[in-house]
Amino acid sequence: MITSTANSKVKHVRRLQQDRRYREREQAFVVEGTRWLQEAAGAFPGEAAVFYAEEWLATAENERLLTRFKEPPIAVSEEVMASMSDVNTPQGVLAVLPMRPRSLPTNPTFLLVLDGVQTPGNLGTILRTAGAAGVDGVLLAPGTVDAYNPKVVRGAMGAQLRLPIHSVTWDEVRRLASDTLAWLAAAAGNTPYTDVNWRRPSTLIVGSEAQGAGSQAVDLAYDTVHIPMHANTESLNAAMASAIILFEAARQRRSW
Amino acid sequence: MITSTANSKVKHVRRLQQDRRYREREQAFVVEGTRWLQEAAGAFPGEAAVFYAEEWLATAENERLLTRFKEPPIAVSEEVMASMSDVNTPQGVLAVLPMRPRSLPTNPTFLLVLDGVQTPGNLGTILRTAGAAGVDGVLLAPGTVDAYNPKVVRGAMGAQLRLPIHSVTWDEVRRLASDTLAWLAAAAGNTPYTDVNWRRPSTLIVGSEAQGAGSQAVDLAYDTVHIPMHANTESLNAAMASAIILFEAARQRRSW
Repeated sequence: MITSTANSKVKHVRRLQQDRRYREREQAFVVEGTRWLQEAAGAFPGEAAVFYAEEWLATAENERLLTRFKEPPIAVSEEVMASMSDVNTPQGVLAVLPMRPRSLPTNPTFLLVLDGVQTPGNLGTILRTAGAAGVDGVLLAPGTVDAYNPKVVRGAMGAQLRLPIHSVTWDEVRRLASDTLAWLAAAAGNTPYTDVNWRRPSTLIVGSEAQGAGSQAVDLAYDTVHIPMHANTESLNAAMASAIILFEAARQRRSW
Repeated sequence: MITSTANSKVKHVRRLQQDRRYREREQAFVVEGTRWLQEAAGAFPGEAAVFYAEEWLATAENERLLTRFKEPPIAVSEEVMASMSDVNTPQGVLAVLPMRPRSLPTNPTFLLVLDGVQTPGNLGTILRTAGAAGVDGVLLAPGTVDAYNPKVVRGAMGAQLRLPIHSVTWDEVRRLASDTLAWLAAAAGNTPYTDVNWRRPSTLIVGSEAQGAGSQAVDLAYDTVHIPMHANTESLNAAMASAIILFEAARQRRSW
């Protein structure tokens, strides 16, 4: 059992939690909690490095979950778990997973581009919603928080494993979205989002709540869309606006 | 200028922030920040008790804002402001407002009932979205966090002043919703939410993310609705599910 917070494996985990560039260099990220561990056991049974605290192992179900991993799980003290965890009250189990985003389909017909969304909780929620709405992939433009930030990981509920999510340059956004019509969500947008024909290959661009979208997004967009609201004093945050528009698109496109 | 955190006015504000029963007894609640103060100046110019820290007053715009209130605003030290504020980095201004919820229309045609939603951030977001979607009112069933909790106030962006929001018993829910068809959102609900005719007088009931809705909600409901999702491993939290269903209803009902 590891009992020292200075152990090199422990320091590795901590740095993966804290440092985006280190995550990208190591091509690895950290997931926490039983639910994420179940996702990890399905996706990377041979590659996940699992760390657990004794008390988490108390149930037979959790013990069985550990046997699904090929690498021997590593027991750590509560203090060490607390030092590795990104939350105040750790669930008692975490894993290091390889960063291996799914590939985008060759001809995407429904993309989501996020421009400058910097609140990790918002991005996590958006990724979770985007998966449920059936997007082909999510492109994170420069200035957007990365999908492997621990708070994003916590909110996204496994979307990182199921959905193509890529941090890209604007050149790549333009290339990947080139066969789609791009719609930019804006509070004062031209077209009500319900008047768009989302059955055509489409890209939705959502900017940050604070600053809106940047000039690259504006240049890329075919037109702007808005969500008609009952009371004009109201506003919606980026996560809610994304959910509302993505599910209107899903309603129109749905074959499932 | 008040410089003691033991001042009785300061203690009053602190208790309003922390204690739901005290808020109900005093029929008052606390709002923080410049944006909320603008709302307060519009709604209760004669009744708001405003507290500010010197540094907040630095701009002419903020100084003008203070002149819109009838009661003389009270200057406090930074330390006192910190002791009254519910956030770690206070904006430097807050106000005590009367709790005076708007009345429901006599014949509501679009109600939202929340059953056991306990995460204040979620409730705040839901109230903000409900206002934008044009509901006639929101009923908070027993076991739901109150609309004047400081975290709810922070997230709801003024919805408390614009929208009828009432904490009620189940008997009152039944009475108020009696002329509507009640739909209960459930992950395994019978009817896709897009197949409901929301133009008929309707009530949407949303339960807590953790436990779903209780038996009273189930009894009241005419039928259950679900949001079809692309990947069946996905789920949506109460705030996202509410936004998606409320805005489908808004799409169908919209005359604005």
